[in-house]
Amino acid sequence: MASETTFIESLRALAANPAARGLMDDAAVLDIGGVAIVLTHDTIVEGVHFLPDDPPEDVAWKLVAVNLSDLAAKGATPLGVLAGYCLTGDDAWDAAFVRGLREVLGQYETPLLGGDTVSLPQGAPRVLGLTAVGRADDGSPSRTDARTGDALYVTGTIGDAGLGLALLQTGQTGPETPINAYRRPRPLLSEGSALAPHVHAMMDISDGLLIDAVRMAEASGLALEIDLDAVPISAEVADQPLDGRTLRLRAATAGDDYQLLFAAPTDAVLPVAATRVGMFSAGSGLTLVDRDGPVPLPETLGYLHG
Amino acid sequence: MASETTFIESLRALAANPAARGLMDDAAVLDIGGVAIVLTHDTIVEGVHFLPDDPPEDVAWKLVAVNLSDLAAKGATPLGVLAGYCLTGDDAWDAAFVRGLREVLGQYETPLLGGDTVSLPQGAPRVLGLTAVGRADDGSPSRTDARTGDALYVTGTIGDAGLGLALLQTGQTGPETPINAYRRPRPLLSEGSALAPHVHAMMDISDGLLIDAVRMAEASGLALEIDLDAVPISAEVADQPLDGRTLRLRAATAGDDYQLLFAAPTDAVLPVAATRVGMFSAGSGLTLVDRDGPVPLPETLGYLHG
Repeated sequence: MASETTFIESLRALAANPAARGLMDDAAVLDIGGVAIVLTHDTIVEGVHFLPDDPPEDVAWKLVAVNLSDLAAKGATPLGVLAGYCLTGDDAWDAAFVRGLREVLGQYETPLLGGDTVSLPQGAPRVLGLTAVGRADDGSPSRTDARTGDALYVTGTIGDAGLGLALLQTGQTGPETPINAYRRPRPLLSEGSALAPHVHAMMDISDGLLIDAVRMAEASGLALEIDLDAVPISAEVADQPLDGRTLRLRAATAGDDYQLLFAAPTDAVLPVAATRVGMFSAGSGLTLVDRDGPVPLPETLGYLHG
Repeated sequence: MASETTFIESLRALAANPAARGLMDDAAVLDIGGVAIVLTHDTIVEGVHFLPDDPPEDVAWKLVAVNLSDLAAKGATPLGVLAGYCLTGDDAWDAAFVRGLREVLGQYETPLLGGDTVSLPQGAPRVLGLTAVGRADDGSPSRTDARTGDALYVTGTIGDAGLGLALLQTGQTGPETPINAYRRPRPLLSEGSALAPHVHAMMDISDGLLIDAVRMAEASGLALEIDLDAVPISAEVADQPLDGRTLRLRAATAGDDYQLLFAAPTDAVLPVAATRVGMFSAGSGLTLVDRDGPVPLPETLGYLHG
């Protein structure tokens, strides 16, 4: 992980163009004659980001959905995707992947624009890349512009995908909703477009509410206090046999939510339902509280794929 | 290879948007308020497209150059690139790769806009992806629009990179020019922009002059005759101890030239030096001739990476 940080630091020198947003944001934003063109690229690796026995349809869904979620976080509507696909000689897997691709691209009315298909040496893990491009016509919020006195809001509920992953990992046949949240996340495209003109900063939650909220606070040069009791959770997450604080901490540090996290004035009239979970102030660092007072920060604030 | 063709055929149904150009062209072209935004993505795999002991600086150069060459072929000027990078725990390789990235991006004044860095499982071959985005302000020629009576032109000389690869594969210390042509291809960006308004069809030569010319003819629904003696070759390529026809066939079927190949009227006044190598006519198929008459088509028309 140290070497990844060093590596990305060395790339930053090549990313001086303002469109790169210092490699700090979810996506790059180019100004083309007054239109914001938003570009994002994610790579997923077999054995790291997905498992060899995950349904290929779900792998395709997730690859597209996580990229579209980055567009959503920048208030952009998708124009299309380019796929970097690897063939490994397993025709059934490839055909199932294309079925998943068709489902997710159809669902979000996003065309495949191009890409590249290569063959991998025998036994190599699949490495799948996707670039999504979109346009934002009402501004494209970065994650760096939260202001002192802004509240931190989150859409939907938190921790469902994390519960789904835990159910899958322990082989339980639990409720379907969290498993679907994990396997088939929904990019919040219409919500992102609607929110963009109303927020100061926005990003999607991919690694966990706490770690992503800290990233927004750090990028904005502010301190952040989060009220753990305010974190919205679903009935399935609330129904676990854990005490409230443990349960909410687990939800707030699980990854793959793909909800929108944003900073807006406390009196903003929001066009989308969202829950206020914290407040930004001058300074730095994260403070966590609940009804019983200060909450010690957990050792890990989110889920890192490495 | 059969399964790659089937796979790409199955993707074509997802690429109905005109910007995708039916997945037939070098790049996708989006119209953003009258500006053509050109997008291309290439993936290269260790052991397939480059060797584990290739200098990492050259791997980075080539990854960027082949993508910028696709932009050049569509008359586009680069706006930036997004990189999908894999860490394997070899810090020295990564640092050398970043040096190569800095060189090539600096040379072509192209910013890094974003991307993703992932860690690969132990022993997995590197898979490196790159998306390049550019803008074409004077039209963006496709490869599908050659017309009956157009001549086929090519820039520069052909076969240098192929000779360079052969020298490297046999461990010879030959002339540096072909080895450089193989390791550090130059994307013809200014040439592509200058040519775009003058040509009917254009593409870059990545797999070999003959196979890429056949692709243009097929995509345009035309027959093509190429005069092998007209194919421009460098002194180094001409200097090989082979008879003229064998030597020119080898040059015309070697990959990695990254010269521009285009169709234009025979009386077009071209802003860039280029050599006329063939003629399009109604019908289909490739005919090859030289001073001694018809030339039987070689078994393989180009270099396919599989």
